[in-house]
This record gives sequence, structure tokens and C-alpha cells, in this order.
Amino acid sequence: MNFNNIIKPTLLLDKNKCLGNINFMVQKAKANHVILRPHFKTHQSRIIGKWFKKAKVDKITVSSFSMATYFANDGWKDITVAFPVNIREIEKINELAEEIQLNITVENLESIEYLNKNLKFPVGFFIKIDTGYHRTGLLSENYSVIDDIMEKANHEKLQFKGFLTHSGNTYQAKTKEEIIQISINSTNQFIQLKNKYISKYPELILSYGDTPSCSIVDNFEGIDEIRPGNFVFYDLMQLELESCNIDKIAVCMACPVVAIHKDRNEIIVYGGGVHFSKEYILKDQTKVFGQVVHLTQIGWSNPEKNCYLSKLSQEHGTISATDEFINSIQIGDLIGVIPIHSCMTANLMKEYISTDNEEVDHFSGNQFKS
Amino acid sequence: MNFNNIIKPTLLLDKNKCLGNINFMVQKAKANHVILRPHFKTHQSRIIGKWFKKAKVDKITVSSFSMATYFANDGWKDITVAFPVNIREIEKINELAEEIQLNITVENLESIEYLNKNLKFPVGFFIKIDTGYHRTGLLSENYSVIDDIMEKANHEKLQFKGFLTHSGNTYQAKTKEEIIQISINSTNQFIQLKNKYISKYPELILSYGDTPSCSIVDNFEGIDEIRPGNFVFYDLMQLELESCNIDKIAVCMACPVVAIHKDRNEIIVYGGGVHFSKEYILKDQTKVFGQVVHLTQIGWSNPEKNCYLSKLSQEHGTISATDEFINSIQIGDLIGVIPIHSCMTANLMKEYISTDNEEVDHFSGNQFKS
Repeated sequence: MNFNNIIKPTLLLDKNKCLGNINFMVQKAKANHVILRPHFKTHQSRIIGKWFKKAKVDKITVSSFSMATYFANDGWKDITVAFPVNIREIEKINELAEEIQLNITVENLESIEYLNKNLKFPVGFFIKIDTGYHRTGLLSENYSVIDDIMEKANHEKLQFKGFLTHSGNTYQAKTKEEIIQISINSTNQFIQLKNKYISKYPELILSYGDTPSCSIVDNFEGIDEIRPGNFVFYDLMQLELESCNIDKIAVCMACPVVAIHKDRNEIIVYGGGVHFSKEYILKDQTKVFGQVVHLTQIGWSNPEKNCYLSKLSQEHGTISATDEFINSIQIGDLIGVIPIHSCMTANLMKEYISTDNEEVDHFSGNQFKS
Repeated sequence: MNFNNIIKPTLLLDKNKCLGNINFMVQKAKANHVILRPHFKTHQSRIIGKWFKKAKVDKITVSSFSMATYFANDGWKDITVAFPVNIREIEKINELAEEIQLNITVENLESIEYLNKNLKFPVGFFIKIDTGYHRTGLLSENYSVIDDIMEKANHEKLQFKGFLTHSGNTYQAKTKEEIIQISINSTNQFIQLKNKYISKYPELILSYGDTPSCSIVDNFEGIDEIRPGNFVFYDLMQLELESCNIDKIAVCMACPVVAIHKDRNEIIVYGGGVHFSKEYILKDQTKVFGQVVHLTQIGWSNPEKNCYLSKLSQEHGTISATDEFINSIQIGDLIGVIPIHSCMTANLMKEYISTDNEEVDHFSGNQFKS
């Protein structure tokens, strides 16, 4: 890598690791005969999108209509927005629905009634099912509302695609076994639903999400489609959950050293909450905001023992480090830091430099224009 | 306000409150005969910058050279970068130094030696003093390093401006009195330094920061310059510290309602960690990510009792609310949420809509280009 050009906090992307992660999930989906509809909210990048396209992925998931537009404009033709439909964006929905196979997510009648009246082009819709995460969705046994939605939906405009769930409760799991158990539990609820509705809707599919399950579980029997997202990069949160090992983490921040305080074993880097986000994991009741690595010609080393990002303010990062590490560092050096939550860090950084010095795009985000 | 145009999470800016906050600090600085050099990292906006200019402010603080460039390009001629100088940005430093009065912050000899060799145009420099926050800076009694810096600096290129501190430890204070005590303590250390160096550097100034002290303290005797930033908007963190009252908070997120779960007293809004940031405050050991308000024609109401943002994922916000509030809300409505930390929220949102429907800019941030 050419580090001379890196003058401020920069998100490095190891292309080989990333391609390896893509290939791993593509092969897994293939072996299990499930559709892979990766969630693009993690990378939000057209260039990385093309890497998926090369691996024969042609259906994707995003988390907003703005993001859907970003990818539709780059040629993606089949996009699911896995977020309860925001009816205030009806104009954008109609624009997208005219151009591509747009699938939306619904969990209440009010949205269906609004869409019946205001949709100008057909969209596919999934009913969001809550299989245990309790963030959004209908409980899988809430047949009365499910039936009501099916009945009230104008099926010329709203084409029923199936059921969709996100088992985000895997993120609270303490062991791999717990993740597997959550996945079995969700799948069982899902299969019951399918059995109930398949005769009336023979094309219906079951769409299942989350990186921890999709990484750890080996058997997707009963499921038709998987929507993991984070696996494209992984991160320290996933490492904690044992969804990945350290060699699979494909992103790393490069941060300039601006101060060294040997008396308290601290290094201050340029790299704060506006770069990393303030996500942390607790290790022995200590907040860890990132793990320190050495940058190398081809990427980065394994984490340095007892060296971690211990505090973040807006632009400052405080690294707690060993004497040995501190003695190896000078003002103006770059330090590598593996992020806690790669989705949030990438979303803040808004671009990547790949380990072969390529600039990689990221959707610009929240602005009115997008 | 015209809410019809608001279709996704949007940061509202109450211009009158903001102008009131600017005026409050301008008058306070005037009454105390101190220079007000506001920190622009909170708003990062040229339009809001112009509101300061109108109030006769002509010196500003920023936290990066990129941000300095953003404001220099809009006509600001005297900018302090209150962050330990990042020597990897020497090219940008030279570009800025050619155009404006650029002041940098230094806390070690290595940077001075590098700058001696590589500066092409004169810059002002402040020595960063650690008066108790222990993030960056030299302890105020570390005369040996301070003297060394003064001695080694090539004073033709590096013009000594004075001492600078940020009492960020006020953010950990439990009471107003504690904030005042921290401020007195910092000021005393500062005055001692001034007394020691004033004869040799008769022009030296003491530059003091942080919104909690500058809002609460009434007497800045001994101090020459103040650099508060957050006061331009304030937020729930400042309200907790009693730096402001609720009427002074000038920003509020408007978030579309996408799901309502009466059974667990929850509303799901479009508005997550990528909009708010994951900053929180603890109230009775419960994490609070924002406080719920009703949006009104002219802005927003006082907070609704027992209604708050209780969880955040990437794009979802979970609002815990009373029956009464939930019953007043429909799918597709907008809910107002006062943010915990306005600097972080504004940095994520990258633009504002003012209560008189004006689009207000925000520096684009981390990209290579900027």
C-alpha cells in the first residue's frame, strides 16, 4: 500500500478478504439452494456491488429508498427495501417501481391502504414477521392481521412475495449455540407460516436475514432466501459473536498519530466519533472502541495485545497501549484500528481506499438530494 | 413550517433560538472583555457562520484543516485549528497559511521540529495545556517541555500566540458548582503560566474552551479568549449539565413513523444510528438516545413526558411512549426528537432545514477530496 497519500483518517479495504467473504456466502447459499440477496447497507458501494455482480448475485437488499435509487441507477434491477415502508416517500417509490422490480416490506394495514390508493406501478411486498427480535414485524401467529393485509391489498399493485424476518436478536447471543438456537426457532415459525399460506400463494418465499446466523448456521432447510449484509466486511462485533475469525475482517481505519503520552500509556490519533461512530464492545467491563493493528505493505497485522481504542471524542481517538507498542510509534505515524461496527464506520467515512490503492465509492447518505 | 416536503429523517434548525444562542455568547464575551472565537465544529455551516459574522465575530475555531479550508474558502481570515497539529497534512497547512492567519495547536517537540523544516509561510501556534481533562496537552507545570518548544521553534515561521486549553472534564461534572470549580481551577493554572511567560511574550493570550463552562461561568477574569462551540445549538447532554434550558435547544430531528406497536408501547421511526449517532445519556440507568417532542407550525413543543428514543439500530429508531402519545400518532406522521449530542447528529445529517424552510449547508466531511 502507498501510505504516503494517507494524511487523515482513512478507511482501508482489503479487497482480497472482501472478495473471499463474498465468495464464502455465495458458495454457502449455492450449497444450500437458497437465494443470496445480500444487504448492501453495510458497504453502500457501487464498486463493491460490482464484485457481487461478478459472483452472479443479481438481487439485493437495501435499507432505504434513497439507497435503492443509488443502486438502481447503477443497473440493479431487483431490490428489496428491508425496512417498514415509509409512505411519505411515495413519489420515490413510484419512480423506482416504474424502473425496477422493487420489493417493499409491510407490517400494518395503514400502509397497505395508503399504497392501494397511491401506487402507480406494481411493487412486490413482503410481510415483516417478528420471530423474536421484537423491533418490527407481526408475530408469526398473528394470522388475523396477516389475513387482513392479504385481503385488503390490491394485488394488481401489491404483489405478495412472501414473509421476511431479521433475527437481530442473534447480536445479543452469548454463544454460537445460542445463535443456532435462535435461527432454528425463527425457521420453525417461518415454516409454519409457509405451510399455512403456500396453497393460496404457491410462489411465496421465506426471506431470512442477519450475518451471525448466515455465517454460523450450516443448514437453511425450509428457507428460500438469505439477506446477510455485514459479512462483506465483518468487524469486531462479529468476531466477538464468532461469526468470523480475525482474518476475515476486511476493513481497518488508518489514523495519524498526533500526540503520545507515555506517562499514561496513551497515544492520541486523529480519528474520533465522527470517523468510527461511538459503537463499543465491553471487554472485562472496559469499553473498547476498536482494536489496534500495525499497518503493513499488504494490509495490516493481527491485533496488538493490550492495545485498543479506549476513548473517542469528536475527532480525537485515545489509544491505550503497552510500553512496547508506544515505543515503536512516532508523531506523524499511521496506526491501524479495526472498527467495532463496520456498517457504521463505513457510513461515516463515505469512502474506502483498497489495499491496491483504488478509491472505492460509498453512497453519500442523508442529504435532501439523495 | 412546511412539513409536506419532509419525507425522511431531517434535522430541523430553529433559526431564532440559534440566533439567540449566538447573541447570548457574543454579549457575554463583550461584557467580560474576552475575544469570542467560537468553535465551528458543531454546526460546520457557512450559512450559520454568516450569522456569527453578522454578530461581529471574525475569529473562529475548527477541529481539522479540512474544516479550516471549508471556512477559509468562505472568507474567514483568522482560524485556529484546536487539535494537536497533524503533520501529515503539511501541504494543506502551507496552502492555508499562505491565505489566512492560521493558528495551530502544538504539544510536542517532534511537531515543532517538523514544522521548522517544512513550513513555507508563517503560522501562529498555541501550546496546548492540560488543565485536568487529560486528553491532550502538556501539564501547566511542565516548564521544561514548554521552554524547549519555545526555544526550538523557529519564530519566524512559528509565531507564539499563547496557551490553549479545553476543559472537557466539565462534561463529567455532576453539578453546576463542579463545573464552576473546574473552570476556576483551569483559570488559576492558566494565570500562573501567563505570569511566568508574559514578560518574554507580552502579546501572549490565554484561550479557554468548552460550552459548559462558557455557558455557566460568569467571570472570565484572567482569560483572553473563549472557544465554546456546542452552545450554538445546545442539546440534551448540555441540558443535563444545566448549561442551557430546554428553550435554548435549537435543533430537532423530524422522523417519519413507520410502525406502531401498542402492545409494547413502542413506535418505530425512520431515524437510526446513521442519523442520530449512538450517543446516549443514562436516566435512572436507562439509555436515552433522544427526547420526543410534537412538531408544531413554528417548531416543536416541550418534551412529551415519558416518551423517549430508547433504542437505535442503523436506520430504525424505537420510541418508548405513553398510551396517550401513541394514540395521538399515525403511520406516516412525523415525530420530533431532540438529539443527545447535536455536534454528532449534525455531522451525520450533513444539512439542516430551518424553521423558515431554508436549506442550511454543512461541511461534507471525511472524503479524500475535502
